[in-house]
Amino acid sequence: MNSVLITGANRGLGLGMVKYLTKNDKAGNIFATCRNPSEELTKIAAENKKLHILRLDVTNIANIGEISAEVTKVVGTQGLNLLINNAGVTTKFTKLQLVKAEQLLENLTVNSIAPIMLTKSLLPLLKQAAEANSDKPMGAQRAAVINMSSILGSIAQNDQGGFYPYRCSKAALNAATKSMSIDLKKDQIIVTSMHPGWVKTDMGGKNAPLDVDTSVAGIFNVIEKLQESDSGKFLQYDGTELPW
Amino acid sequence: MNSVLITGANRGLGLGMVKYLTKNDKAGNIFATCRNPSEELTKIAAENKKLHILRLDVTNIANIGEISAEVTKVVGTQGLNLLINNAGVTTKFTKLQLVKAEQLLENLTVNSIAPIMLTKSLLPLLKQAAEANSDKPMGAQRAAVINMSSILGSIAQNDQGGFYPYRCSKAALNAATKSMSIDLKKDQIIVTSMHPGWVKTDMGGKNAPLDVDTSVAGIFNVIEKLQESDSGKFLQYDGTELPW
Repeated sequence: MNSVLITGANRGLGLGMVKYLTKNDKAGNIFATCRNPSEELTKIAAENKKLHILRLDVTNIANIGEISAEVTKVVGTQGLNLLINNAGVTTKFTKLQLVKAEQLLENLTVNSIAPIMLTKSLLPLLKQAAEANSDKPMGAQRAAVINMSSILGSIAQNDQGGFYPYRCSKAALNAATKSMSIDLKKDQIIVTSMHPGWVKTDMGGKNAPLDVDTSVAGIFNVIEKLQESDSGKFLQYDGTELPW
Repeated sequence: MNSVLITGANRGLGLGMVKYLTKNDKAGNIFATCRNPSEELTKIAAENKKLHILRLDVTNIANIGEISAEVTKVVGTQGLNLLINNAGVTTKFTKLQLVKAEQLLENLTVNSIAPIMLTKSLLPLLKQAAEANSDKPMGAQRAAVINMSSILGSIAQNDQGGFYPYRCSKAALNAATKSMSIDLKKDQIIVTSMHPGWVKTDMGGKNAPLDVDTSVAGIFNVIEKLQESDSGKFLQYDGTELPW
């Protein structure tokens, strides 16, 4: 891939994705967005000219529009091959009696609205990449959007209840994935929701069964094999398709 | 049913529901909420002592909390049997290139956050009704919440794309329905998402195939037959189950 952009790249899965891509030399340019770059991300960027750190608070919609210009400065007319909407927030487990409007609003803003607005903003660059690679079949080497969702956003698989802010926001994101996959089909851009598994991160907690490296390797294995028929699907890090 | 509360009762489906309940003498008390009562709703209330108009702007979370006290004044310790979260907004058809963050925020606030917060707020009254009618099986005559969703919120059935604000907000509402159905099972409260069909209203437009009366009669036919196994499902006005 010529270029990849990952949001929420400061820690957890996002940082794991950056490490995977730099270590395995998988992309010509890696754009890592975050609010405040961590020491670890800054250090990797200092050692790797392909890694570009971009400041982005996904809740700041005006800020979202600026990212496109920053990416263009680097990629020129080659566009952006892969956008991974990874930045996300969650709240603690909440039964109905405890849910707060502010939690719902924050989760929906960061996990649903921001990925939609960022994808809209980067759409011209994704189209450029799809056209620049028109000799290749549809896939991540041409143009793709990965919306990092969660199995908690699967309505069909919800048998525990609660978690309103997170579940609702990821179900909304899944709805956006499906619409995007239809809207962008004519532009030869694949759009897929992915569940990373339950991963040992600040979000997943230390009891999670998967480590970051295993999840990330699985995610990129799925991404590299993406084909047209995967667009509009909800895939787990190991390739398993999940129900909505 | 002793008591029913319907949001967005000023026009369209909500007004149709109020008319159906008053005309067929289906409920002891009907609470109709809206921002500004229309002449038609006011006239029905003047002729029908069972109909109580309550002012509610569902985007005003503080306002939501006041409704519970208003209902209690009327129902005493009998609680609320049926809550129909019907108030909703939509935007015109929008492909990804045209979607605005403000549209997403408005639709998610009115269609997803408000129903969750109102259900939370009325939960003590719903529990009261479930307990007061513990001799009856689970159902709308005991305690039930109907979240008025839309087939546009079905991710599986989306083959047209676009409509991000509305689709995402209804998918989020469906996710809330499923969690509520699990969280409130121990309280013997049924929670179901419903699709009213494509109805001739301000929202549905004049080309819609269904009139309000047909949709509303179907909706109440489904509601009256609700049983425990319907909780957590997504049902159409004619009883057909829809996929998430």
